Amino acid sequence: MPAVDVTGEFETIRKLLAPLAHPEWGRGLLDDVAVLPTRPGYDLVLTKDAIVEGVHFLAEDPLDTVAQKLLRVNLSDLAAKGAEPFGYMLACHWSERCGWPEREAFARGLAIDQKAFGIALIGGDTVVTPGPASFSVTMMGWAPKGRTVGRSGARSGQLVFVTGQIGDGWLGLQAAQGRLSLAPERVAALAEHYRRPMPRLIFAPVIREMARASVDVSDGLIADLGHIADVSGVGIELDLEPTPLSAAGQAWFDTRVDEQAALERLATGGDDYEIAFTAEAGDEETLRREAERRHLRLTVVGRVVAGRGVTVRFGGVTLSVPKGGWTHGHSPVDGATES
Amino acid sequence: MPAVDVTGEFETIRKLLAPLAHPEWGRGLLDDVAVLPTRPGYDLVLTKDAIVEGVHFLAEDPLDTVAQKLLRVNLSDLAAKGAEPFGYMLACHWSERCGWPEREAFARGLAIDQKAFGIALIGGDTVVTPGPASFSVTMMGWAPKGRTVGRSGARSGQLVFVTGQIGDGWLGLQAAQGRLSLAPERVAALAEHYRRPMPRLIFAPVIREMARASVDVSDGLIADLGHIADVSGVGIELDLEPTPLSAAGQAWFDTRVDEQAALERLATGGDDYEIAFTAEAGDEETLRREAERRHLRLTVVGRVVAGRGVTVRFGGVTLSVPKGGWTHGHSPVDGATES
Repeated sequence: MPAVDVTGEFETIRKLLAPLAHPEWGRGLLDDVAVLPTRPGYDLVLTKDAIVEGVHFLAEDPLDTVAQKLLRVNLSDLAAKGAEPFGYMLACHWSERCGWPEREAFARGLAIDQKAFGIALIGGDTVVTPGPASFSVTMMGWAPKGRTVGRSGARSGQLVFVTGQIGDGWLGLQAAQGRLSLAPERVAALAEHYRRPMPRLIFAPVIREMARASVDVSDGLIADLGHIADVSGVGIELDLEPTPLSAAGQAWFDTRVDEQAALERLATGGDDYEIAFTAEAGDEETLRREAERRHLRLTVVGRVVAGRGVTVRFGGVTLSVPKGGWTHGHSPVDGATES
Repeated sequence: MPAVDVTGEFETIRKLLAPLAHPEWGRGLLDDVAVLPTRPGYDLVLTKDAIVEGVHFLAEDPLDTVAQKLLRVNLSDLAAKGAEPFGYMLACHWSERCGWPEREAFARGLAIDQKAFGIALIGGDTVVTPGPASFSVTMMGWAPKGRTVGRSGARSGQLVFVTGQIGDGWLGLQAAQGRLSLAPERVAALAEHYRRPMPRLIFAPVIREMARASVDVSDGLIADLGHIADVSGVGIELDLEPTPLSAAGQAWFDTRVDEQAALERLATGGDDYEIAFTAEAGDEETLRREAERRHLRLTVVGRVVAGRGVTVRFGGVTLSVPKGGWTHGHSPVDGATES
């Protein structure tokens, strides 16, 4: 595209982004392309997620956390597939609110997470838009040839596991919007999770070895297990009682009168970025040990059965599917309310 | 990201995009990732360009041509590097004007160009934005290991070549905006070039063999040669007289009184998507033959010299650099006027 630097794009690339580029593959962002050596014995695993202001992040979110969320939602996809990330292509669609200090903050967020997760910027594009800011990333990683975990390997008899805790994504959005009446430190912890979720890359090597079908929890636990069930051609029974909650999530849960409704809410909320996967029942003990070694919570939340779709159970009873399915039925930022 | 299908994203993926996906690598767009076998002996070459409505394409541009332009501006980057494209990751940020028929048109445009250029959709993301539509692509190709042509190989004594014709990008924008008073078929041809530029992939194998430094003409011929001069640490002398014009470009040129100003205008306009490259003078004949075999125009427009930056010459005289450099100094859609 014709690039005239009226909006400072060249300066942004030279001063803010070039220092983040992979020293060899990124060519200092001085070329039109990135050139990557291939890795014999490995497959290249790619994912792409885009985020839009007012839809996937809040207009008042600081841009360093927006940059971190952008990387992390993409890293989460790779973690759930057992892949090891190494770099990314970035497209920035800056809005008017993205002045130089905001762009600096964005680059700072990228730098922090590049170090944290061992990745480098490989290339990309920056443009301005008269609309809200949006960003997209193509995240790349390696997995041993033929070993990327998909959604299609779930078989009757396997157990369904989930890492970490469920519900902090949705609760975090409420917290970030000032809609939660909990102790300030709880609200802060939840908002922090919404802005900077933690991709479970630490568990990726275990996923690669032992998971049969795997997905990251972005649409909501029930919906994401539904993806596995659909693609694998099986049924999944999900028990709501063992839903693992964070301390803040538990504090919110304790204020609820209708426990079933509360757990349904958390299991459909999305934005958790945990890994939900199926594995052979015989591997449960090994999985628990591997999770413990990594100080990572791991919970059995259900089982794979013959049939179709996800069956949700609470108190020994199978719940009927709500109208519109097991999704919360509104856009993540605008529609959701806590009550 | 939590994906609730209020805006038809799942339907868009299932009905419009999944049929475009690479049968194996794209996993039917049913997974969170794409998995690509690596290719021994080859490097992976990546580029990413984003386009925004009202900035890089016009609000009234039909979405099938927008999709084609999106692919082509990315393919052009690979062509200039001598790489062979095979697939792409796509991010769609749909605006309110992108209803189902518009999305269908967009997918139709992708399908046509996938077939034309031998590429497949590998994966991506679709989201909605309350602002103008924007799209980005990460285009991927292969180049024999270590053979990707960069910007740094220009050396004193080499000649500077350009494929095709210069100026149709800028003239095409004027035409698409109804600002040109030329014969209707000229206006139509120029607008068509603006909406659907032709990436010079046909010349990529020759570029790979014989170009020493290469760039696609997106910012404007002078500015893009400036990138080569900067990165290579050399000077480039560009002669304006041999600037190759299309029939429509020539028709416009014939209406101009100030020939020098007209050629400066075309050489700074950008959006041409030709390949500008340097090669050894001794290779000129071979290059001409290879271009001829492909029915592609090839013009020597200058030479590499000791020094720094681009020196522009007309009528045997070196022109002084305008204030603000050899760029047209305004955004591609909004600011440019024909007169």
